[in-house]
Amino acid sequence: MYKQISSSRNKEVKHLHQLQEKSRLRRKEGVFLVEGIRETGLALKGGLSLKKLYFCEELFPKEKLEELISDLSEQPEITELSSEVYEKLAYRGSTEGVLALFESKELNLDNLKFKSEAPLLLVAEAPEKPGNIGALLRTADAAGLDGVIIANPKTDLFNPNIIRSSVGCVFTIPIATGSTEEIIDFLKRKNIKIYSAALQASKEYTTIDYSGASAIVVGTEASGLGDSWLENSEENIIIPMGGEIDSMNVSVAAGILIFEAKRQRALKH
Amino acid sequence: MYKQISSSRNKEVKHLHQLQEKSRLRRKEGVFLVEGIRETGLALKGGLSLKKLYFCEELFPKEKLEELISDLSEQPEITELSSEVYEKLAYRGSTEGVLALFESKELNLDNLKFKSEAPLLLVAEAPEKPGNIGALLRTADAAGLDGVIIANPKTDLFNPNIIRSSVGCVFTIPIATGSTEEIIDFLKRKNIKIYSAALQASKEYTTIDYSGASAIVVGTEASGLGDSWLENSEENIIIPMGGEIDSMNVSVAAGILIFEAKRQRALKH
Repeated sequence: MYKQISSSRNKEVKHLHQLQEKSRLRRKEGVFLVEGIRETGLALKGGLSLKKLYFCEELFPKEKLEELISDLSEQPEITELSSEVYEKLAYRGSTEGVLALFESKELNLDNLKFKSEAPLLLVAEAPEKPGNIGALLRTADAAGLDGVIIANPKTDLFNPNIIRSSVGCVFTIPIATGSTEEIIDFLKRKNIKIYSAALQASKEYTTIDYSGASAIVVGTEASGLGDSWLENSEENIIIPMGGEIDSMNVSVAAGILIFEAKRQRALKH
Repeated sequence: MYKQISSSRNKEVKHLHQLQEKSRLRRKEGVFLVEGIRETGLALKGGLSLKKLYFCEELFPKEKLEELISDLSEQPEITELSSEVYEKLAYRGSTEGVLALFESKELNLDNLKFKSEAPLLLVAEAPEKPGNIGALLRTADAAGLDGVIIANPKTDLFNPNIIRSSVGCVFTIPIATGSTEEIIDFLKRKNIKIYSAALQASKEYTTIDYSGASAIVVGTEASGLGDSWLENSEENIIIPMGGEIDSMNVSVAAGILIFEAKRQRALKH
């Protein structure tokens, strides 16, 4: 028998709800909540430490629980939630029946480990919308990037909207955050060349050789990249545009740049 | 002096509000509402016919109105709205002060006129989210595509969320809609080769020559493209992925494919 909670007024439920809503509380307690089976599986695969597991038996039968956590050396506390409680906590309505409380991971630059000798990284300066961050992370996962670095994040990356819009990719790729200065310093120390995307740049992105260790840097849609990036770049690069509106969605622009680098790298093998 | 409306309970205001909410009403009356100065300017530039203009003087002074409509041969009816009424109708809050009622344009395939002899087109099958359609249209504008065709649209393209998320690009590029069959038939008649993006395809997208008349076709994130597309393609193409999740945001994938075609075409000039 598992511990059971059937009232939305239960203290633990209220606390979980606050963890979903409040970035500050997540930071303070060093935990965050994951919704969904696939996402929970990816977080486990990403090496995150599972503290508590909640399920709603009507949606997710007990037997399946065993499967989800069968590989864990340490068993998490498991709690059964009534449908009413589960629905209060679930963002996606009553589709999956699983919520998991994980310990946050430190997203320090120095924890980044690259799988290749000439890593390819994406750096995004203060992306605003969780949907854009999610799309960036999905692209990074698809491209098999060595890492994603978020400069001056506007929210913590374990925000429920980012987890959801990244379909769990936030757990599958090495991620770090830092200030612009810290990141530039880190990239220089590691001899990773900086290619900053800027509308005022003159080099077309297709004329650059990305086969060495490279970081592609994209700014916000509203204000682009600051001078520190532009001045510390190996090259500032532009995607030539020929329309009425000189602006693309930031995750589309990043996808175009990353996959050009991938195309070039594939040719060399 | 302009006609003035200061009550939200005014019939015309209620009717405008319904036009924003109801796709069916827009279709029935053949009109739609545009918010914002830039968007209204782009709709005029795109040759759409302006029927009525609404402004809120506190946000958009009368003198500026003249500028906006100075080039029009026929003057629209102009109405001044109180702040209260304007805020009821405006999606973006009180930022711009201009709303414009335009006549809808027929988005028939046969109305599409291509500027180049070897047109480059994007076809998107039933894209679900207005945000994704907006991003697709911005990418199409940036790439200077000859046209965008939406197969089996889930909503009319003059939906306020699409106008907003496309930052007005819905007016700047030639757009058509149709059923899958109609579009395949149209592309074949025009000798435009079909390149369908599919996860089960074997040809990498970078190995295709897009210099001839080409239509790049992308499906939905949930179910991809149907058999009629795959069977009528010149080639089915894949963006090679190497991550945990084999899925990218549809507008990112479209951007990668379109800009690869653009890159190849630029090399030939």
